[in-house]
Formats: sequence, C-alpha cells, structure tokens
Amino acid sequence: MEKTVLNVQGMSCGHCEKAVKSALGELDGVQNVDVSLKDGKVEVEFDSSKATVAAMKDAIEDQGYDVV
Amino acid sequence: MEKTVLNVQGMSCGHCEKAVKSALGELDGVQNVDVSLKDGKVEVEFDSSKATVAAMKDAIEDQGYDVV
Repeated sequence: MEKTVLNVQGMSCGHCEKAVKSALGELDGVQNVDVSLKDGKVEVEFDSSKATVAAMKDAIEDQGYDVV
Repeated sequence: MEKTVLNVQGMSCGHCEKAVKSALGELDGVQNVDVSLKDGKVEVEFDSSKATVAAMKDAIEDQGYDVV
C-alpha cells in the first residue's frame, strides 16, 4: 500500500469533499481517502499495482477541481 | 404568483446551489428558483396559496444553510 497527498484547489464545502471522495473511491486500488477542506489536501492510500496518481488527478479534475 | 428574495449564508459552490434549488423545487407551489452564489441570494417565484416563505426557510436550513 502506498500513500500520496494531492493538493486540490476549489473544494469549498462538504459537497465538494463528498464529490472528490466518491470519485477517488470508484478507482480500482484506492483504499482510503482523507480530505482536508481547509488545507486543500487529499490523502490517498492506494495499491500502486492497480491505481495511479495520474488516474486520481483525472478523477478529481473531472469533478471540476484543480490538482496543483 | 408572488416573488421573494431570501438571504442565504454558507452557499459556496455549485453543489450548494443545486442542493438549495432542489430542496425548494420539491415544495408544492414553488415555480421558479434563482440562486446567486456570489450575492448569497435566492429568488423564489411561488404560489402563495400553496407555499410559504417559512417552509422555504425550513427547506434551506435543512440543507445546512442559514437564512438571515
């Protein structure tokens, strides 16, 4: 299991948190997602044989947020 | 048909806008809802024989926002 922290801009409320969590949760290999709205950070635990950070970025950007 | 403008605090993003619109839209007698996120204003056209402003406030507060 690996861990990465993504910096995400534009998450403003609990709905945004849910949208990001849910989009990441749908990716194969993603085990756990922690969102800090205040810090704009998303911590993801994942199986690197299945999930990629690039796919996570895509999933977040598809929800309308920027990964910086 | 009547019109009222509610001042709503805490709406921060498109998800919030949708949540408020949808909660108001479920009320009997509500015809049209316009949300301005920037101004924190929600304009509602409604049939006053069916819908009340009190019910609208309740519906918005149930979504987690304050009507001031």
